[in-house]
Amino acid sequence: MPQYTPPVRDTRFVLDAVVGLDRYTNSAGFSAATPDTVDAVLEEGGRFVAEVLFPLNLSGDQQGCTRHADGSVTTPEGFKQAYAQFVESGWGTLSAPEAFGGQGMPHVVSTAFQEYMISANMAFAMYPGLAHGAIAALVAKGSPEQQAKYLPKMVSGEWGGTMNLTEPQCGTDLGLIKTKAEPQADGSYSITGTKIFISAGEHDLTDNIIHLVLAKTPGAPDSSKGISLFVVPKVMVNDDGSLGKRNAVQCGSIEHKMGIHGNATCVMNYDGAKGWLVGEEMKGLAAMFIMMNAARLGVGLQGLALGETAFQNAVQYAKDRRQGRALTGPAEPGEKADTLFVHPDVRRMLMDAKAKIEGLRALCLWGGLQVDLEHKAEDDAERQMAADLIGLLTPVIKGVGTDWGYEVATQAQQVYGGHGYIVEWGMEQYVRDARIAQIYEGTNGVQAMDLVGRKLAQNGGRAVQAFFKLVAQECAAAKANDKTADFAGRLEKALGELQAATMWFMANGMQNPNAVGAGAYSYMTLMGLVSVGLMWLRMADAAARMLAAGEGDAKFLEAKLVTARFYAERILPDAGALRRKIEGGADAVMALEPEMFAA
Amino acid sequence: MPQYTPPVRDTRFVLDAVVGLDRYTNSAGFSAATPDTVDAVLEEGGRFVAEVLFPLNLSGDQQGCTRHADGSVTTPEGFKQAYAQFVESGWGTLSAPEAFGGQGMPHVVSTAFQEYMISANMAFAMYPGLAHGAIAALVAKGSPEQQAKYLPKMVSGEWGGTMNLTEPQCGTDLGLIKTKAEPQADGSYSITGTKIFISAGEHDLTDNIIHLVLAKTPGAPDSSKGISLFVVPKVMVNDDGSLGKRNAVQCGSIEHKMGIHGNATCVMNYDGAKGWLVGEEMKGLAAMFIMMNAARLGVGLQGLALGETAFQNAVQYAKDRRQGRALTGPAEPGEKADTLFVHPDVRRMLMDAKAKIEGLRALCLWGGLQVDLEHKAEDDAERQMAADLIGLLTPVIKGVGTDWGYEVATQAQQVYGGHGYIVEWGMEQYVRDARIAQIYEGTNGVQAMDLVGRKLAQNGGRAVQAFFKLVAQECAAAKANDKTADFAGRLEKALGELQAATMWFMANGMQNPNAVGAGAYSYMTLMGLVSVGLMWLRMADAAARMLAAGEGDAKFLEAKLVTARFYAERILPDAGALRRKIEGGADAVMALEPEMFAA
Repeated sequence: MPQYTPPVRDTRFVLDAVVGLDRYTNSAGFSAATPDTVDAVLEEGGRFVAEVLFPLNLSGDQQGCTRHADGSVTTPEGFKQAYAQFVESGWGTLSAPEAFGGQGMPHVVSTAFQEYMISANMAFAMYPGLAHGAIAALVAKGSPEQQAKYLPKMVSGEWGGTMNLTEPQCGTDLGLIKTKAEPQADGSYSITGTKIFISAGEHDLTDNIIHLVLAKTPGAPDSSKGISLFVVPKVMVNDDGSLGKRNAVQCGSIEHKMGIHGNATCVMNYDGAKGWLVGEEMKGLAAMFIMMNAARLGVGLQGLALGETAFQNAVQYAKDRRQGRALTGPAEPGEKADTLFVHPDVRRMLMDAKAKIEGLRALCLWGGLQVDLEHKAEDDAERQMAADLIGLLTPVIKGVGTDWGYEVATQAQQVYGGHGYIVEWGMEQYVRDARIAQIYEGTNGVQAMDLVGRKLAQNGGRAVQAFFKLVAQECAAAKANDKTADFAGRLEKALGELQAATMWFMANGMQNPNAVGAGAYSYMTLMGLVSVGLMWLRMADAAARMLAAGEGDAKFLEAKLVTARFYAERILPDAGALRRKIEGGADAVMALEPEMFAA
Repeated sequence: MPQYTPPVRDTRFVLDAVVGLDRYTNSAGFSAATPDTVDAVLEEGGRFVAEVLFPLNLSGDQQGCTRHADGSVTTPEGFKQAYAQFVESGWGTLSAPEAFGGQGMPHVVSTAFQEYMISANMAFAMYPGLAHGAIAALVAKGSPEQQAKYLPKMVSGEWGGTMNLTEPQCGTDLGLIKTKAEPQADGSYSITGTKIFISAGEHDLTDNIIHLVLAKTPGAPDSSKGISLFVVPKVMVNDDGSLGKRNAVQCGSIEHKMGIHGNATCVMNYDGAKGWLVGEEMKGLAAMFIMMNAARLGVGLQGLALGETAFQNAVQYAKDRRQGRALTGPAEPGEKADTLFVHPDVRRMLMDAKAKIEGLRALCLWGGLQVDLEHKAEDDAERQMAADLIGLLTPVIKGVGTDWGYEVATQAQQVYGGHGYIVEWGMEQYVRDARIAQIYEGTNGVQAMDLVGRKLAQNGGRAVQAFFKLVAQECAAAKANDKTADFAGRLEKALGELQAATMWFMANGMQNPNAVGAGAYSYMTLMGLVSVGLMWLRMADAAARMLAAGEGDAKFLEAKLVTARFYAERILPDAGALRRKIEGGADAVMALEPEMFAA
């Protein structure tokens, strides 16, 4: 049976060494994050997810959700009780605005908790997770009346929330939306259409579910510029806050999926449902991006979180399972065989997982801080810098975070040998669950296009130049310390490959946009190597300083230095190959006519 | 719903251009493979699997196998009828020896058919597939009586066959086997123990199943040198060939697995079952390797075959699905959106799949020819060369074939976006099914160790030197033709990286075996890049010659040249990075104590 222990020590190290949370505790917007509170969130939140949510992970996968004839949906055994505990203990309200009942904690702190919750039970975590996107949209774009009506109960978790974008004919290309919104005399709209792949679209965890729905008003143009956002409650809410009658929205079916069986992925039928415009008409895309950007960071975190729990189990299995002998002679001659731990190829897989997971944790938390600073930093320049960096790196965190999460989960399964393929050992579920994160909230290919097609060029390349400068500066500084000089030199080289690839895009993209498109994915991966490399530089630097000062747990800090070295020697070398692939351009990629693909 | 069309045209091209099958048709052992017969096998065999086996693939996955209280196992609906047709039409007997009722076709031809059968229905294909390993062991090591008793009905497919190696405590490390074989007065042995992960261990397709079982005789040493191989029929076979009473072997349970649900993976309980020694006592490992090497090539083929069918479907989906617009402006302005085909990142995924799959097909068929030549070539030197090459490349075909098969299946699923995650579309099954191939018959990490720990050094490195020479010679020749010169230059460069990595192992392996172990996986992948590269060189060379001569289908041949270029520009660049990773050595890989892995 799989196990899960929240990696509290590593989270603390990252918050100190990479994020530098203590530098902000006196700033407005960070006041709730006192060291004691943060410790309590990590310790108590970690305990809650490990004790309450994790035990439902395997059983939730096996039972899945059930839709009944009346369109209602039952979640797996234990989910309802666990959700009630979740709401009661307030874990969903950490970073929600205090005005609507939230605790007003910085986003970076709730990100740390989110990681633990997803590791413990991704399918469960998606129920409150989707509500967060809906909350973010209402906070940003809802009218004061809408906010007062819906937000307090959504923030507390008493009500759920969803994001309704996709339709059968329309995924990435939201211009193809067919769902219609007809204005009514009372100022509301009548919403009619079919939405698919709606996570947490219907369930038995809450009394009400607040759907945010993209639809088109009459005469709206046939493109993404014609879509509007509507709030559509499952159950109507009276002015006194009490629940009224059922709205005309129903779950038509639940999807049979590869994984995340514990979460109900619904086809939602809107049949003249009553909805209200959120923000301005035909400005739905902007509102949607508010939900979407938050969701993309959350999905990147899913990659990290599933990788972490799979990795933990693989380490334990490698310690327990005895098979074969060390290449250097029996490590434990008294036993019939040595543990898997002695085998260099097993160790390679575990080190690769450790380097990717701890690096991604740092990147996700650092990204969480940028979200805070974007809104809360006192200085204009600091806000702009944070907005630039997180805008640039959101597709990287989503794309590379989920690619690596899937790779790590697959590799952790591999450590188990044949047992990894067997359901009861739990590893194959992590692989199946991790797979969706590369697909939804914009496939990773869409992330790559967002990065090279939108983010690179915005404001004359201001964000990417700021990123290059940041990495270059920290490399230069780290070269002065002989504990980090080698790493800094290698990271600088990878940065050089990234800069060269960027120049290549600039030189070739104007004549041939496909040359950029054909290299987009490699570019995203390359930027992931460099940005996680920056995180490892910071971790190595902090570890070296602490060791020199005799602070902290020496073994833990030495492991950071070794893992940084592994990252430099075994992961960073891909940078050069990625650049060369990018420079291959579009010719061979785009040359074949469709018919020529058949073998 | 997924589709499958056997890639007959490409198989023919490979048999002509890469394998050069026509050069052997007058040789002994190849006489059955007349051009007409080979054509008939590809066309009719392809039709059989597409019409009879493929329609059972998705339903077989959903139904799975059922074990009943008496230990009997029912396969999914339709499997029994399809299997009867399979036996009746003789598709299982293609390359079996004529002495036992086989058709005596070359292995390379049956490999082509096997690919199609696995593509159509991997879980089904495993029933006869496992029997093939058992047949190979009996052909090589069985006594004339054993051969006469079992082989004719195993070859015809009337009886099944299995390989029983793994036990709960014992996977890779066969020295840990506990199953006991007690000699009996009548010359038989009484077999007692538990075997796990036995594919096709029990089912309703055949009247009898012939188990080949590894066990230890009394006093045998506690290592892999102490194991013996036994033949243990499920139902006793009387001297007249009729079936007698049930033997004391039963299916204790069937495993719940990530995929290949249509194949019954059994726990087999031997409770004083009657068995007979195959070959010599305590020489079981050598007999096991006969089964194993055949099985490993077959598993590499599974990677290719699942990649192929997933790829075919992704191409079709990309042609059908409309979403977004070409970066260069609307390709079909009259439609609401362009097809996925216009998007360079979708095209990149399809080209990557095409380059890997067609390259692997060539490598698997070329490998099949080496198996034939190893046994059937008239010239001693040719037999030795073939044996050396296939010995060296068996772990590469298994390891890289299944790694790429899984990657391609995952990427094909990615092309589908959200629909790829939904069961009914069929793509997620390919990913789940493909996953096992990286794990069983020796994990890919074990393959890598077999390559660097055994195969490289055998006979003073004769095999690897022969391989280097072969690649170098063909590169040198191809540089004279301006259609292949660029490719040859890039392949030569990759070969240089492989040679440098080999030298690095030689220079460092003696002092530190872990340095070799830590680089083994990258080395296997690097050798895969070069060996598939050699196949692409041959395909490009043939395509260029045929185009110049005005032979063949020009579009098909042009696609070969483009895909070879893609391989050179987008896949071969990894060679340098792999070498650098290898040269990172073992220090960072092996430095951490087990406790230091916890975050």
